[in-house]
Amino acid sequence: MTEIFSGIYGRGAVQGELSDAAFIRAMLDVEVALATALERHGLAHVEAVAEIRDACRDAGAFDAGAIGRAGASSGTPVPALLAAVRERLGEPAAATLHRGATSQDIVDSALMLVARRSLAPLLSDLANAAASCAALARAHRKTVAAGRTLLQQAPPVTFALKAATWLRGLDLARTQLEGLRADGLPVQLGGAVGTLAVLGDAGLAVASTLAEELGLAAPPLPWHTVRVAPARLACALGEALGVMAKISRDLTLLAQTEVAEAAEAAAAGRGGSSTLPHKRNPVGAVAVLACAQRGPGLVATILSAMAQEHERAAGAWQGEWGALLELLGLAGSAASSLAETLPMLEVDSARMRDNLDPLVMAESVVAALGGGTGARRLLAEAARTSASEGRPLGDLLLESADVRDRLGPDGVEKALDPARYLGVADQLVDRALAEHEGVLSPGRR
Amino acid sequence: MTEIFSGIYGRGAVQGELSDAAFIRAMLDVEVALATALERHGLAHVEAVAEIRDACRDAGAFDAGAIGRAGASSGTPVPALLAAVRERLGEPAAATLHRGATSQDIVDSALMLVARRSLAPLLSDLANAAASCAALARAHRKTVAAGRTLLQQAPPVTFALKAATWLRGLDLARTQLEGLRADGLPVQLGGAVGTLAVLGDAGLAVASTLAEELGLAAPPLPWHTVRVAPARLACALGEALGVMAKISRDLTLLAQTEVAEAAEAAAAGRGGSSTLPHKRNPVGAVAVLACAQRGPGLVATILSAMAQEHERAAGAWQGEWGALLELLGLAGSAASSLAETLPMLEVDSARMRDNLDPLVMAESVVAALGGGTGARRLLAEAARTSASEGRPLGDLLLESADVRDRLGPDGVEKALDPARYLGVADQLVDRALAEHEGVLSPGRR
Amino acid sequence: MTEIFSGIYGRGAVQGELSDAAFIRAMLDVEVALATALERHGLAHVEAVAEIRDACRDAGAFDAGAIGRAGASSGTPVPALLAAVRERLGEPAAATLHRGATSQDIVDSALMLVARRSLAPLLSDLANAAASCAALARAHRKTVAAGRTLLQQAPPVTFALKAATWLRGLDLARTQLEGLRADGLPVQLGGAVGTLAVLGDAGLAVASTLAEELGLAAPPLPWHTVRVAPARLACALGEALGVMAKISRDLTLLAQTEVAEAAEAAAAGRGGSSTLPHKRNPVGAVAVLACAQRGPGLVATILSAMAQEHERAAGAWQGEWGALLELLGLAGSAASSLAETLPMLEVDSARMRDNLDPLVMAESVVAALGGGTGARRLLAEAARTSASEGRPLGDLLLESADVRDRLGPDGVEKALDPARYLGVADQLVDRALAEHEGVLSPGRR
Amino acid sequence: MTEIFSGIYGRGAVQGELSDAAFIRAMLDVEVALATALERHGLAHVEAVAEIRDACRDAGAFDAGAIGRAGASSGTPVPALLAAVRERLGEPAAATLHRGATSQDIVDSALMLVARRSLAPLLSDLANAAASCAALARAHRKTVAAGRTLLQQAPPVTFALKAATWLRGLDLARTQLEGLRADGLPVQLGGAVGTLAVLGDAGLAVASTLAEELGLAAPPLPWHTVRVAPARLACALGEALGVMAKISRDLTLLAQTEVAEAAEAAAAGRGGSSTLPHKRNPVGAVAVLACAQRGPGLVATILSAMAQEHERAAGAWQGEWGALLELLGLAGSAASSLAETLPMLEVDSARMRDNLDPLVMAESVVAALGGGTGARRLLAEAARTSASEGRPLGDLLLESADVRDRLGPDGVEKALDPARYLGVADQLVDRALAEHEGVLSPGRR
Repeated sequence: MTEIFSGIYGRGAVQGELSDAAFIRAMLDVEVALATALERHGLAHVEAVAEIRDACRDAGAFDAGAIGRAGASSGTPVPALLAAVRERLGEPAAATLHRGATSQDIVDSALMLVARRSLAPLLSDLANAAASCAALARAHRKTVAAGRTLLQQAPPVTFALKAATWLRGLDLARTQLEGLRADGLPVQLGGAVGTLAVLGDAGLAVASTLAEELGLAAPPLPWHTVRVAPARLACALGEALGVMAKISRDLTLLAQTEVAEAAEAAAAGRGGSSTLPHKRNPVGAVAVLACAQRGPGLVATILSAMAQEHERAAGAWQGEWGALLELLGLAGSAASSLAETLPMLEVDSARMRDNLDPLVMAESVVAALGGGTGARRLLAEAARTSASEGRPLGDLLLESADVRDRLGPDGVEKALDPARYLGVADQLVDRALAEHEGVLSPGRR
Repeated sequence: MTEIFSGIYGRGAVQGELSDAAFIRAMLDVEVALATALERHGLAHVEAVAEIRDACRDAGAFDAGAIGRAGASSGTPVPALLAAVRERLGEPAAATLHRGATSQDIVDSALMLVARRSLAPLLSDLANAAASCAALARAHRKTVAAGRTLLQQAPPVTFALKAATWLRGLDLARTQLEGLRADGLPVQLGGAVGTLAVLGDAGLAVASTLAEELGLAAPPLPWHTVRVAPARLACALGEALGVMAKISRDLTLLAQTEVAEAAEAAAAGRGGSSTLPHKRNPVGAVAVLACAQRGPGLVATILSAMAQEHERAAGAWQGEWGALLELLGLAGSAASSLAETLPMLEVDSARMRDNLDPLVMAESVVAALGGGTGARRLLAEAARTSASEGRPLGDLLLESADVRDRLGPDGVEKALDPARYLGVADQLVDRALAEHEGVLSPGRR
Repeated sequence: MTEIFSGIYGRGAVQGELSDAAFIRAMLDVEVALATALERHGLAHVEAVAEIRDACRDAGAFDAGAIGRAGASSGTPVPALLAAVRERLGEPAAATLHRGATSQDIVDSALMLVARRSLAPLLSDLANAAASCAALARAHRKTVAAGRTLLQQAPPVTFALKAATWLRGLDLARTQLEGLRADGLPVQLGGAVGTLAVLGDAGLAVASTLAEELGLAAPPLPWHTVRVAPARLACALGEALGVMAKISRDLTLLAQTEVAEAAEAAAAGRGGSSTLPHKRNPVGAVAVLACAQRGPGLVATILSAMAQEHERAAGAWQGEWGALLELLGLAGSAASSLAETLPMLEVDSARMRDNLDPLVMAESVVAALGGGTGARRLLAEAARTSASEGRPLGDLLLESADVRDRLGPDGVEKALDPARYLGVADQLVDRALAEHEGVLSPGRR
Repeated sequence: MTEIFSGIYGRGAVQGELSDAAFIRAMLDVEVALATALERHGLAHVEAVAEIRDACRDAGAFDAGAIGRAGASSGTPVPALLAAVRERLGEPAAATLHRGATSQDIVDSALMLVARRSLAPLLSDLANAAASCAALARAHRKTVAAGRTLLQQAPPVTFALKAATWLRGLDLARTQLEGLRADGLPVQLGGAVGTLAVLGDAGLAVASTLAEELGLAAPPLPWHTVRVAPARLACALGEALGVMAKISRDLTLLAQTEVAEAAEAAAAGRGGSSTLPHKRNPVGAVAVLACAQRGPGLVATILSAMAQEHERAAGAWQGEWGALLELLGLAGSAASSLAETLPMLEVDSARMRDNLDPLVMAESVVAALGGGTGARRLLAEAARTSASEGRPLGDLLLESADVRDRLGPDGVEKALDPARYLGVADQLVDRALAEHEGVLSPGRR
């Protein structure tokens, strides 16, 4: 069931890194790197390594279906893959292949490799989405919009601040994932029980070279049953999905017919409805939300799989594989949808201003009157009257002698002007943009 | 990533019902059934229906990849599928196709149809697993084994009771799933917003016929955003996975080297280890546990997707699809592994008896002495001495005048005989077997 | 942390059934019922039972804190509770107390008893919420409102249909919970390992009487490690929370400032904001959503706890207790909030009509024109023009000769009238109300 | 339901930081710090601040129940708390109290403060547990034990390596939590919609001072609806629970009657069973597992709550509170149990050696023979014969001329000696201990 819903769950370049072929490629890369590391430390002949490298060159030549099904009797796809590779090897190379390793070493290292490779397009899409938010923030510093709390209008914000808040979320998620990509994806090499006994004294050196060869982190100990690395990766992906969900939830709310402050552009046929030709469905945001919906359960799966037995788990480890790859695919798909959606967002600044209920300025007038229960009570009454009788709030306020004395018509007008009641919105936008540029700078990546 | 781990997650005939082709087949079946129902109620010409049926005959002729990707712009695969079908239709049939329906009607009905079709092999595998448990229960009524609480030995049970307990769990899960298959998988037909407005007065009649045609339940109302049906299906699958996990956890514990009371038979290469040739890994049970590990998170995903907006949700519904199909696939795979594993279970009755620590009979002696704190204290002391000095518990007990008077050597021997301290184990086995036969009987299915 | 957030999570009469005192009460009730059952079957003296009943009369006399803390060394609160009861008993009654049972028997039976007692107020609140939905459905058959899909306006519905859809969800959830209350809450009695060995031949009879005494179901086998009963209860509670979340999500959306079709009434201070005096926050719906947010994770916890070891689990069982009680409390709190919120809902029928975008009637015109691609294209164009130029859709349509010929001005007006394009909305409302009355009728409860 | 299960879920000093009183204390601390910050930046009179500080001095004087219940009408406990404080204030101080803040600012900051305070005892318990693991690692470098994969015996490890692996997990979890405590718990101050409009130009300065006053991090932007901070805290707690679960799962497995390699010491009555006096239940480990069972679902709850609407969420935010506090309580309780359990662990080194199945040395002999298929086949056969006929593996191997030639009796003996086949176990232990000391060093904390 991978193709038919790929428009929702299977988008973005990340998917290519998660195919069967890509996983076989990663397992073969681990075996080749292991052979190389063995040779480096005097445990393999250079010819054997060359033979292995050659035999492992073409991932597509291996039958993923057959190798996968064989996992039913061996518990992992590794033995069947090894058998297939060994068919292409002479005896000395066959004996070198996989030397010192256990199946879990290969699967775990391959998972980390696949994660590393998947994170590249995923991070690129997140960076594009962030860049779009930054562009929106820069463009809409003067675009006043209703703040909304509990889905009720509240004092005004700028659309720039909204975009900056999205940006902040994306940049936090990116930093976390970048950090993991840099040093949170450890190679696995421990042999049958973590002691690397087959490799004698060379074990640690081989493990260290293996990490280098693969571009993975070198952990101080094997982590066969201490699953902090997959847990952290899962959590960071769950966090990224959560941030994308927040943005997309906002997009669907802004796109409501009754709000209509933002819309996904109508590319060829995009978001249309056969029965409702005028409709512009927020399909990009919906696809992100659909992916994000599935994140927390997958993170929980990987966390609950941490209770692993002894030196290799009976079930919990094996349950991790699919969950982790799925999480990578969903996060990648969501990032791709979001990166595609944000640049084509049509923001209706005029509508934002029009939608603003003047009553949200009550807080501003209370503040102008110096706060306090009296002012609060006065405003509450004026707001209620304005709502029920449809009279302007300003007129009602000026009926109060106290207001007339303290603010006067000009003061009331100022206090009721949303554009004058934006607090530090602009400075917050500056901060988010500055952070963003820092995240992007080479020194930080 | 469907093939490479299929030995763990992708086993059983259920997988064939969950392929892209199977989902396209189901969507086409819904469209054909809808056209048929329209015709039945005077809303379509018989020729148009025949044309539609013909155009929908070959699910394999449709390009799942292209249809899936098109979901990115329309939000579901339905519009692209309809376009592909319409290419094969003349105008009148093209206008009849999908009449009155919305995309969600097709996807939801297809999901229920796929669920229904998947449940057949899944239930068959569960039935086979249950039959194996029943056979074990029948065969091992006299096989005494240690009960174990908190992984500590406790008073004896029979292996029959253990198997009967497994059986009970499987039969509960099967009954639940059978019930849902019988009337818990509703057709969806509501049109754009649930009113079936396009179909005028005929809406309810068409919906009812559609349900009949597809063999799905006819719900009183459309359920576009009241997702009780998928939630119940998910819960029942989660329950089935939980029951299978309990059995498999027990199997892995019984198979431990130090316990060795049961083992998965060594079929050709099954459960072997390349580095540990003598090892017999409980790979069947491990595969079940790996699938089960992923169940609760998926159920949570589907439950959390219940908070759907208005007449069609923006994200939560779309997130359900993948999670539900995955859950079906995992439950089916687990059932297949379990059904394969249980019949080949090698039970070592002698080892069960040998493993029994005599001290677990302390409770029996306390009971023979009539309970009470005094007896309890006496036994606690004797047990401790026996454990530390290695002397038989019976000898130590007979040092007490009270024990000699009240039980005598014969009484002590009887009280220490595990085979005489099995309570109602046999009657419980009878009950589980009787229930099981009831579940199997045609009247109950 | 039970009090400070009780306005959100701790509402309703259900909370009283979930207190420490209530749990001690339930455990004592189980012990008393067990003694009674023992006596019934000749295993206890009537005086001992009377003494036990007397000693267990006042749950408040037991120190929950001390008993709870003692669970750290024994694993459950039962031994400390028994010790406290035994202090009030003479030796024969002390020996009778708890005879044949294991701690898990008491905790599990008490959990089921607490569940049963909690379900009464919970179901009552759900019934009240359902009754409010039914009243809304009856009152608003003529209230036309926009249907909304993906948060975009779609063809019209009636508010009655919306309320009927909510009603349907609540009635499904209620039926499920009622069913469990009637026969899905089993007593637990198995003794140390499920064989009831201490009770000799009388075990099954004692278990059966115990169930009767407590008003719980009598299961064919003990279910110490086959946790279908708690799993089903959790799932049914999760389903109920999901249904309530759907309703509440709709309420928050309808209450949006820009939509304003429904509002929670402003009871004394309810939903107000200190800084925004005019604001009417949908606090009832928000409280429901807050509780519902926590449901899926708790259900997942209980499902993942099903993989229990042998005859008593080491951790998974103990993890269930808190999760199950929390789920009961949250479902009860949500039901209480919803039952309080729905009757005070202020529905603004005029606003519903005003909010309706005339363009949603495009589908109706397409249908009036007989469907087909031509009509669809015509409407799409007219809708676009209407949206961009602000001209009435009807005028634009009548520019087409084809439309003039086939429908004429009258036909166009009819086709554009939302009140004439409601399909079977009214019949669906009838169905939901009929179901509802069936659920309420004594024959169904 | 807080007391009765406190022996399982409610252990450790952390619980005191999570009480109602502690939460009120934290909210009051935020209000006092806010007043202080206002005064620092010229927005409050020093007398008003003193009055506020005085009114907030005694958290116990506020009625948690009443304040909590009031949350039903206001959505948070803050307005009722403010009203109660204001009763103790004159008008100017009353106007200063809470100035510029919104309820969410107070609740979020209080949650972070409570988290910070809870992390102290939690981290202390984790540090104690880690120290115990380090001590075990140091003490058991020579203790040879069976490695176990899929619960089957595998080549040998040392118990030191097992303890070092546990240690590594704990140190990773501690480092993560320490990092969050140092700079991952941000203050919240944004006012109604995040713009701090009430505070004019001073907003950012006040927020910065508030953070300093409370010892919380100062975030660049308010995070009202970008919930990365609670998500990361939840994930780190979930990770810690996962690591503790791994250790505790191992403890329960090692404590099995049939394995008996480690036991929780029998403190007064600890782990005993009333019916099985000799039994030593691993109650400490079980309590940890019970808490850990509940972690993943809570993390999922908090992650799924990230999809928050606009400037303040309607439900998702409010759902976070209870979940986050529960997670803190469970992690703290688990850490307390583990810290109590590990130092009293009785390790039976002799039993570890005795349990070792000689056949696990097959891999070692294969390695000594230079690997390769031939050696593997030879060993597989010898192992099978040894298992079935009960003859020593060494004798069987020496029947092979090839083995005699290449290894000789001495070589075979060496190859079969577990103590000579431990690979880099000792170096891995060194690494874990070195890391541990680094984590403990002041420079790292």
